Amino acid sequence: MTTLISGGQVLSTMGASAADVLVDGETISAVGAPGTLGPADSVIDATGKYVMPGGIDAHTHMEMPFGGTHSVDTFGTGTTAAAWGGTTTIIDFAVQAKGTSLLSTMDKWHEKADGNCAIDYGFHMIVSDVNDSSLKEMQACVDGGVGSFKMFMAYPGVFYSTDGEILLAMQKAREIGATIMMHAENGIAIDQLAAQAFAAGKIDPVQHGLTRPPELEGEATSRAIQLAKVTGAPLYIVHLSASQALAAVAEARNEGQNVFAETCPQYLYLSIEDLAKPDFEGSKYVASPPLREKSHQADLWRGLRTNDLSVVSTDHCPFCFKDQKELGRGDFRAIPNGIPGVEHRMDLLHQGVVAGELTLGRWVETCSTTPARMFGLYPRKGVIAAGSDADIVVYDPAAKQTLSVETHHMNVDYSAYEGMEITGKVDTVLSRGRVVVSPSGFSGSTTHGKFLSRDLNQYLN
Amino acid sequence: MTTLISGGQVLSTMGASAADVLVDGETISAVGAPGTLGPADSVIDATGKYVMPGGIDAHTHMEMPFGGTHSVDTFGTGTTAAAWGGTTTIIDFAVQAKGTSLLSTMDKWHEKADGNCAIDYGFHMIVSDVNDSSLKEMQACVDGGVGSFKMFMAYPGVFYSTDGEILLAMQKAREIGATIMMHAENGIAIDQLAAQAFAAGKIDPVQHGLTRPPELEGEATSRAIQLAKVTGAPLYIVHLSASQALAAVAEARNEGQNVFAETCPQYLYLSIEDLAKPDFEGSKYVASPPLREKSHQADLWRGLRTNDLSVVSTDHCPFCFKDQKELGRGDFRAIPNGIPGVEHRMDLLHQGVVAGELTLGRWVETCSTTPARMFGLYPRKGVIAAGSDADIVVYDPAAKQTLSVETHHMNVDYSAYEGMEITGKVDTVLSRGRVVVSPSGFSGSTTHGKFLSRDLNQYLN
Amino acid sequence: MTTLISGGQVLSTMGASAADVLVDGETISAVGAPGTLGPADSVIDATGKYVMPGGIDAHTHMEMPFGGTHSVDTFGTGTTAAAWGGTTTIIDFAVQAKGTSLLSTMDKWHEKADGNCAIDYGFHMIVSDVNDSSLKEMQACVDGGVGSFKMFMAYPGVFYSTDGEILLAMQKAREIGATIMMHAENGIAIDQLAAQAFAAGKIDPVQHGLTRPPELEGEATSRAIQLAKVTGAPLYIVHLSASQALAAVAEARNEGQNVFAETCPQYLYLSIEDLAKPDFEGSKYVASPPLREKSHQADLWRGLRTNDLSVVSTDHCPFCFKDQKELGRGDFRAIPNGIPGVEHRMDLLHQGVVAGELTLGRWVETCSTTPARMFGLYPRKGVIAAGSDADIVVYDPAAKQTLSVETHHMNVDYSAYEGMEITGKVDTVLSRGRVVVSPSGFSGSTTHGKFLSRDLNQYLN
Amino acid sequence: MTTLISGGQVLSTMGASAADVLVDGETISAVGAPGTLGPADSVIDATGKYVMPGGIDAHTHMEMPFGGTHSVDTFGTGTTAAAWGGTTTIIDFAVQAKGTSLLSTMDKWHEKADGNCAIDYGFHMIVSDVNDSSLKEMQACVDGGVGSFKMFMAYPGVFYSTDGEILLAMQKAREIGATIMMHAENGIAIDQLAAQAFAAGKIDPVQHGLTRPPELEGEATSRAIQLAKVTGAPLYIVHLSASQALAAVAEARNEGQNVFAETCPQYLYLSIEDLAKPDFEGSKYVASPPLREKSHQADLWRGLRTNDLSVVSTDHCPFCFKDQKELGRGDFRAIPNGIPGVEHRMDLLHQGVVAGELTLGRWVETCSTTPARMFGLYPRKGVIAAGSDADIVVYDPAAKQTLSVETHHMNVDYSAYEGMEITGKVDTVLSRGRVVVSPSGFSGSTTHGKFLSRDLNQYLN
Repeated sequence: MTTLISGGQVLSTMGASAADVLVDGETISAVGAPGTLGPADSVIDATGKYVMPGGIDAHTHMEMPFGGTHSVDTFGTGTTAAAWGGTTTIIDFAVQAKGTSLLSTMDKWHEKADGNCAIDYGFHMIVSDVNDSSLKEMQACVDGGVGSFKMFMAYPGVFYSTDGEILLAMQKAREIGATIMMHAENGIAIDQLAAQAFAAGKIDPVQHGLTRPPELEGEATSRAIQLAKVTGAPLYIVHLSASQALAAVAEARNEGQNVFAETCPQYLYLSIEDLAKPDFEGSKYVASPPLREKSHQADLWRGLRTNDLSVVSTDHCPFCFKDQKELGRGDFRAIPNGIPGVEHRMDLLHQGVVAGELTLGRWVETCSTTPARMFGLYPRKGVIAAGSDADIVVYDPAAKQTLSVETHHMNVDYSAYEGMEITGKVDTVLSRGRVVVSPSGFSGSTTHGKFLSRDLNQYLN
Repeated sequence: MTTLISGGQVLSTMGASAADVLVDGETISAVGAPGTLGPADSVIDATGKYVMPGGIDAHTHMEMPFGGTHSVDTFGTGTTAAAWGGTTTIIDFAVQAKGTSLLSTMDKWHEKADGNCAIDYGFHMIVSDVNDSSLKEMQACVDGGVGSFKMFMAYPGVFYSTDGEILLAMQKAREIGATIMMHAENGIAIDQLAAQAFAAGKIDPVQHGLTRPPELEGEATSRAIQLAKVTGAPLYIVHLSASQALAAVAEARNEGQNVFAETCPQYLYLSIEDLAKPDFEGSKYVASPPLREKSHQADLWRGLRTNDLSVVSTDHCPFCFKDQKELGRGDFRAIPNGIPGVEHRMDLLHQGVVAGELTLGRWVETCSTTPARMFGLYPRKGVIAAGSDADIVVYDPAAKQTLSVETHHMNVDYSAYEGMEITGKVDTVLSRGRVVVSPSGFSGSTTHGKFLSRDLNQYLN
Repeated sequence: MTTLISGGQVLSTMGASAADVLVDGETISAVGAPGTLGPADSVIDATGKYVMPGGIDAHTHMEMPFGGTHSVDTFGTGTTAAAWGGTTTIIDFAVQAKGTSLLSTMDKWHEKADGNCAIDYGFHMIVSDVNDSSLKEMQACVDGGVGSFKMFMAYPGVFYSTDGEILLAMQKAREIGATIMMHAENGIAIDQLAAQAFAAGKIDPVQHGLTRPPELEGEATSRAIQLAKVTGAPLYIVHLSASQALAAVAEARNEGQNVFAETCPQYLYLSIEDLAKPDFEGSKYVASPPLREKSHQADLWRGLRTNDLSVVSTDHCPFCFKDQKELGRGDFRAIPNGIPGVEHRMDLLHQGVVAGELTLGRWVETCSTTPARMFGLYPRKGVIAAGSDADIVVYDPAAKQTLSVETHHMNVDYSAYEGMEITGKVDTVLSRGRVVVSPSGFSGSTTHGKFLSRDLNQYLN
Repeated sequence: MTTLISGGQVLSTMGASAADVLVDGETISAVGAPGTLGPADSVIDATGKYVMPGGIDAHTHMEMPFGGTHSVDTFGTGTTAAAWGGTTTIIDFAVQAKGTSLLSTMDKWHEKADGNCAIDYGFHMIVSDVNDSSLKEMQACVDGGVGSFKMFMAYPGVFYSTDGEILLAMQKAREIGATIMMHAENGIAIDQLAAQAFAAGKIDPVQHGLTRPPELEGEATSRAIQLAKVTGAPLYIVHLSASQALAAVAEARNEGQNVFAETCPQYLYLSIEDLAKPDFEGSKYVASPPLREKSHQADLWRGLRTNDLSVVSTDHCPFCFKDQKELGRGDFRAIPNGIPGVEHRMDLLHQGVVAGELTLGRWVETCSTTPARMFGLYPRKGVIAAGSDADIVVYDPAAKQTLSVETHHMNVDYSAYEGMEITGKVDTVLSRGRVVVSPSGFSGSTTHGKFLSRDLNQYLN
């Protein structure tokens, strides 16, 4: 079964060029000058459209257990929404519970995800219990295709690791070639500020932002970088939101250290003003790190241009306003953390292209090619090239759409971008050669997606 | 006529992957999984070898007039030597003489080069006479495929432009989308230091280095960056040699300014100790900026890794020791400036890969892909991809060679790298589909190379 | 003849302490605990007031020749106004005309000033003609008590020196221990921008600011610093106005280089909005560097706190609006450059104390003690101590005043601070023991002031 | 009883000037021109010598309890040794034991010190148990003349405070105007490295240095600065030893934050090579932070010049080699931390003057005047001025001496500077008007010194 995508502009990190793409089965068999390929069993007319590698969202939390509840997208609903938005790979986080092993955690996440995804998926491993046994298991995780380990400098008592534990895990990562992903906020100090605010009767969602000042993200980012320097471990800062943290990353990268960072669409478009919305509306925007003052946004866009921010992920972690976010009425600290977004990343970043913030090449690079290389999926994913998986998005750069809970496909009762007008829209999506989204709707299946056993980070010096 | 290059590791900015390459006429017609392409009229067995885009040397000076003499490589000998070393494109500098026009200069360079090159070539334009007329001609140069203009902050009375002239040219460049290339040394201050040294009886070649301190390269680089900021012009710093200059470039790039820089192999491997060689031997190493203290080298390698240095060029400008370099016996200021190197760039940078300084991907990127994009040749040049020109190097990473005037093909009577042992060697070179170098020797022709009309810089934010 | 100043708070760089001061003739004979000194021939009751060392304004231009006219304060009127404002020493600039010698220039300025000043005074020397002869004369200037030499990177054709000339003068300064003072703006580039603006019909005073962007002050400051580094000369940046320049100074000072800088009250309080006032009113605010966007002001105040800005001077250079500033109607480039201010510096900086921008100690330090040490007058000037000249200001920190042309004593027909309300006011001023200003008015004489033969910079590492 | 010190050069932060000093009882009654003061009951001839304010050592540990033993200098022996070396004030650390109160700690230290000191003394308070009660007591400490509180980011389980505890103490400090002093090393990470080294059989003293890399001092310093920024607390970094930490301090100071730092003579003169001395000799040099690579020393001297390092203290904490240092044979972690030095600070820093590293003014400033201002003792201490305590050192800048355990007066069985030759030597020392050291020996008494109730930091912006 072959498919020809003809007449479009094929996108890569280098920009756009007119080319046709031939898909044979699950992979791309050829990329050729317009009109030179085929015939094929079916043809997709991409005239006037971009033909780009499917998006890779390297930071999602489907069905994530949280305080007796779960994030509301299952692997099924979440990956379906992702596909709608032009994302054909997610890398989700397996969450080690204290007292359990990494391998049993990995098994548990396979149980949840295997056979339940509309698109391909991989895992990172959250290490929340550093001990001799879990350190040893890290190699087995790598062998199982999970070569990136997330740790937390925030959330004491939950995911938090001490600097000593981080040091141990980084030493191991250095030894086995794995990458440490870091949630970099000084949670110890933050929790004091939050407790003081609550004690002072300050209970509204905006307090979530006010008690997590950007200096404490900058501090933790610097600290993680120094620990990585001492140990030699590759470091990837997740969901960077603050100018201070960006400055720390930029400095380390200037010195040639293996330090990388991602940001998320919410930090590029939303701000603490959203957190301050009245009537508990602000709770919809509670995530950590928090939304910042708008002044940080220009720095983040610049960081995407300079590659000090290499990746855009979503940190998709949807909790419904009703019954879930509402758990925090009366105490902002109890609001489940997370903003839904897996469906909108490609569109929101294309909007950055429209606004002149990013080039086409950087759009593809930050949303697909770099995550592929960073997390060992390249060239299987992240590029339109012969031999690569046929994860392909035909994107209409001129179409208009309005984001809304009314129209989105994520399983959550609000949109963080309600009413936002976007130029550009997914037309057709192929996952491993199969059309899963087309103008006529979703034609995929939540049994289609396969687990991706990933290689190590391909960027290391 | 088709050629199949099979069994090799195809290199790109992303690294290596096993693939075959099919050449049809002058272009690459397909890149495919091993064994999937062909048959072809001829086959090149690349087993155990790299198959990479031909090198692009964006900074050469063939037949450059200098004080009554010329650099000794003609376009014919120079491009032949380039081909021997795996470089399939050069961009040479047309040199406006004071009082002449840019377009007549371009014509003159076409006369010299057209029909006399073994590989493809383009031109940059040296602007040494800024006036209303030459500013107007800049657009015509762009229309003629020359979209990059070099200016000098050094060499008062020769190529030197004042900051006011630089400002005017940058304003024009901004307007027409062209890139200003800058020789960034404070020549006004340097000439005083040089005159003082000479007056004090210090006449040896090492004085060339001592009177051009790295601070004065750093200063001029910063100044050029600020002028570019004020005008909005894209800026490309040529032959960056000093840590101070690198720091200035890195800072500007962190801020997202359109500032780029190249370095050259001589700054990575040679030092002021070479300039200090006795018996006028040091004259062989006289170039500007001068060779620096060895401590700068680690910074330059790091700059190549971090992309603060984006390109490696040679500044190939060969003068023979006998009769040419010797003009400066008795006055170091009269030594013709220039070091031969067009033949060795690919090998010297591969040596950096061997030494762990660069990844394979960065080798290809700094020596081929980035110069192609920087100077508007991509994707015609700089990549192994269907539709691209079949400028291909089959490189044997395990071969050993020793650099020497005895064996090199440049038309100059010494080697700056005499006796240096290199791991890695060109096996076969194709220029637009034609085998021009193979294990049996040079099979090209100095009528083969064509002028490349270049687009504008493809990196601009 | 003795005078006792009793009951006040004596100020030093360390802050305030209750003490009495006994003056015997021209000098301070004792500083003692309250009530321990005396009796004396006369007593000044300083209860509730500060007793501080007289202000030192290290940057004034009295009777400065400019395009056929002169700045309108003579040494007599200007020093009288200074005394009114609590300044008891000025250092004025002797201006070498091209083609004349430094020593004849010094003679000429002695002729103008000697016997015509109400307070003590010294000179800096403006070097506008660098040649073997003037370089040799620098030592004689030092011997004559003038150990600081000002140069210009702006004003081509007038005061401008090339980088080569600056290098030569700096080498000489390094040799003889003198300090180079620098007007740091890239005048070559600026003149192009100004000519373009004029050619485009933009003739209003605000163009003066728009054509002198802060980047070009930052650039020149960095350049001067690098030239000073190469030569080893002490460098003092005059009238620093831009955040970019401050950053360059701060970086050099962090590295321990002998780099110093002053700012002026106009840069702390006025902005480009004043330059943009309609009806040619903006011309009153034309000075170089120009008034900047308000955002620079906070950085300058911070610089005063951190000592990256060590001195506050006025650059007092008064031209009347009528007939003088008006010369530039029709061409902003012809507006005489200068803002009057010698009378208001102490008050304006005390206002900074009131506003919490500076401590009392830093007020005294930046306005008196540091200029004394920087320009070789300490401990004769700049401190309330036994043995020092009795240049003393009794300052009432609670008095209120409104600045206005109606009440000021400078010989100029407008006030740049018209209507500004100030807390704090000079009560009494002694110059070398003589009361020259008291609540009953001016009691000095323009024959009282003496020339100060200065030592070298006392801050050098 | 009056004493005239005549014929000397009186030193201040501004340098030297010829003056006589008259002492009346415990205080200085006058400073006057040579020959103008007196007669007096006794005369000290200071011809050819410096007359300077007595040294202030703001960081000592007398009789400090440590793992069942004590540092071996009592307040009596330690302050006597200090006097011998020209130090007339120490500020020692009261050490809160976990579970005890700050005020009872203060009482305990008063018991130890009161009536047992040869010179005046004050206390800082080490807070090792942050809780509601101790936070409240901080105000009472301030009221009791102890306005500086030291915390530890190192030594988990002993003095270590979490970032949350530091935040709370800083908030309180900000509220009451106190200064937080910080031992800035990441002890959590360091303890892992140390445990790993020990587990690997690496037991020698040099491991103390190798397991405490300078990056982890830089990290902790940055972290403390950020916590201080978030809370607004003044911060004083104790015993700064590493270039990385200095860079962090310099950056904060550039931004005008109330951040200060001290270094110690051992970091200026000794290095990790001393720690690596064979036969357990290295244990004599075990202190934290550890001695660094020599390359850090030039940065520290530069920091003293630029005032990024404001104070030189000793961290005097003497443990005998025999029986005390030897506790760590077999496990470097058990070596008592501390290097003796209270006697040698003034000499070692004068040696910096001799070597051209510091000016005379900076010697006095870093060793006396700034500690006085930083810790609320000025102008009672830290200056030769009428009204100040007559804590005076007559210093012979030309005398020669050799440091040695044979000749020093500290109660410890080795000298860290054994055999070092010094130019300059204390001649005579007055403590509150009493001659306690003279060429004929020690004439003081350990009942002479009085407790100094200190004011708050006088440097705050």
